[in-house]
Amino acid sequence: MVRLAVDADSGDFGPEAMVRGVMAARLAASEPFAVCVCGNEERIRRVLADIGGGAERCEFEIEHCPDVISDGDRRSTAWKTKRGASIVRCVALQKEGRVDASVSAGDTGVLIGSALFILGCVDGVARPALAAFIPTPRKPVLILDVGANIDCRAELLAGFARLGCEYVSRVRGIMAPRAALLNVGSEPHKGPPAIRAAAGLLDGYENYAGFMEGNRVFSGEADVVVCDGFVGNALLKACESFYALTSEFLADSKETYEKLSQKIGALNPENYGAVPLLGIKGTVLKAHGGSSVTSIKNAVLTAVRYVSG
Amino acid sequence: MVRLAVDADSGDFGPEAMVRGVMAARLAASEPFAVCVCGNEERIRRVLADIGGGAERCEFEIEHCPDVISDGDRRSTAWKTKRGASIVRCVALQKEGRVDASVSAGDTGVLIGSALFILGCVDGVARPALAAFIPTPRKPVLILDVGANIDCRAELLAGFARLGCEYVSRVRGIMAPRAALLNVGSEPHKGPPAIRAAAGLLDGYENYAGFMEGNRVFSGEADVVVCDGFVGNALLKACESFYALTSEFLADSKETYEKLSQKIGALNPENYGAVPLLGIKGTVLKAHGGSSVTSIKNAVLTAVRYVSG
Repeated sequence: MVRLAVDADSGDFGPEAMVRGVMAARLAASEPFAVCVCGNEERIRRVLADIGGGAERCEFEIEHCPDVISDGDRRSTAWKTKRGASIVRCVALQKEGRVDASVSAGDTGVLIGSALFILGCVDGVARPALAAFIPTPRKPVLILDVGANIDCRAELLAGFARLGCEYVSRVRGIMAPRAALLNVGSEPHKGPPAIRAAAGLLDGYENYAGFMEGNRVFSGEADVVVCDGFVGNALLKACESFYALTSEFLADSKETYEKLSQKIGALNPENYGAVPLLGIKGTVLKAHGGSSVTSIKNAVLTAVRYVSG
Repeated sequence: MVRLAVDADSGDFGPEAMVRGVMAARLAASEPFAVCVCGNEERIRRVLADIGGGAERCEFEIEHCPDVISDGDRRSTAWKTKRGASIVRCVALQKEGRVDASVSAGDTGVLIGSALFILGCVDGVARPALAAFIPTPRKPVLILDVGANIDCRAELLAGFARLGCEYVSRVRGIMAPRAALLNVGSEPHKGPPAIRAAAGLLDGYENYAGFMEGNRVFSGEADVVVCDGFVGNALLKACESFYALTSEFLADSKETYEKLSQKIGALNPENYGAVPLLGIKGTVLKAHGGSSVTSIKNAVLTAVRYVSG
């Protein structure tokens, strides 16, 4: 049975969304799964009481986490200074072999620091990257990094191209994936030094497809689009808001909206729930800070699929 | 009468699109305007012959430009080394007072270098920025920079906030515009040093609205969204492809598409044609490299509006 750690003290709504999300996932899951909910035990039990229990009917464990990470704590070292924080404990439980994967809606920096130093990177990977699939008319395209590394030197970008290709081959069975570097132009002289240098490092890599401008990302010409975490984060979040934008624009015509919604529904963060941290020894999923119960439900279901599939 | 300089040797289609675009604009314009088309005279005359003339019926001047800028030329200094290139001549004609504005689909770096060194910046502006309006359900939002400055230090970002506010007050009559800095999070400790420092520089500026994540850009909460030229370029081009994406997704339902198209039509680069270079002494518009005849027509009409309005 899949065993998950869920960071209850994370996200804008804390246990209210996280615990309810877990319970919703349990009801929606085709296979039962075990969950260890990390966080403030009292708050977690209060939410369980509100829901009217249910925990006793599944493999539901509570790991009380007394530490709280404040704005004063350094993100990158919190895994060491706040070992008793729920977000750190989730990752530690993976290291201890008590769970197969963890889901958190907490601070990206803290989560990455914990994954990086507690679980470590896969051989040959310098830094992990957050990767997200965005839908295109032809196929979903993997964008990375979407927030793990704000500023990336050439070596990281080149590594993300390989990481992304390896990932789409594995999860989507694409034999010869094409990875492009997001840039302001397609000519070799265009763009920042780091991206031009990354192109040099990828020269000769059979899956490298060259530079790609923002207007080609959705074309589906590439299976993997590589950029730094700042750009990827802005792009991914803009995609999400495009979903909201479209629905607002179409508010007056319900069935039109329904039609489009089926197609670009994947842009709705509620649906994809969480994005994986690639390059880490273990399955760590980052959910939106603003995750709703539905988002967490889908994040948990995604985690279960990752481990079992 | 408005007098424009148009860079005929620019864009993927050269005079074929540029000259035809000018002629199309002439027919669509409510007021007649004078145009000086800069480029290879022979090629321009060949296109005019293909169209079957028409130039003689309007104030149409040809400025022969013998120089050609090659990949070998440094973008930033081409304004000096290739004074006889069409893109440089267009800007020079403004300096000479022969035209009121210029339109080019040429290299952004060359255009900015020319504008910066031939026309110069408005007092208090360190670097010009390309700015584009994107539609939101509530109102159009100005994004800058969308490609003039690939990498921006804090001072530039802070300057763009002021530049953008001044611009939206002028062209859209917004009395107290709100300018936000695009960032990966809204908390003060989030994001790259340059953006956090820019926030510090804008502290106390009455129009500064704080950090904004990518998913709020379309919310219309801010009138101006500031980011570096790489991020803005990726975002703007992604917005354009949302338009293409949506139309592909809705290909099977024409009237649905029509409905949405009216709302997000502004995301179609064909419609907005060109974006202005802010902070420059003079009106310089940059059109897409891939501009079609329709795009150039709209770019020219935009330029006429800028000068006359």
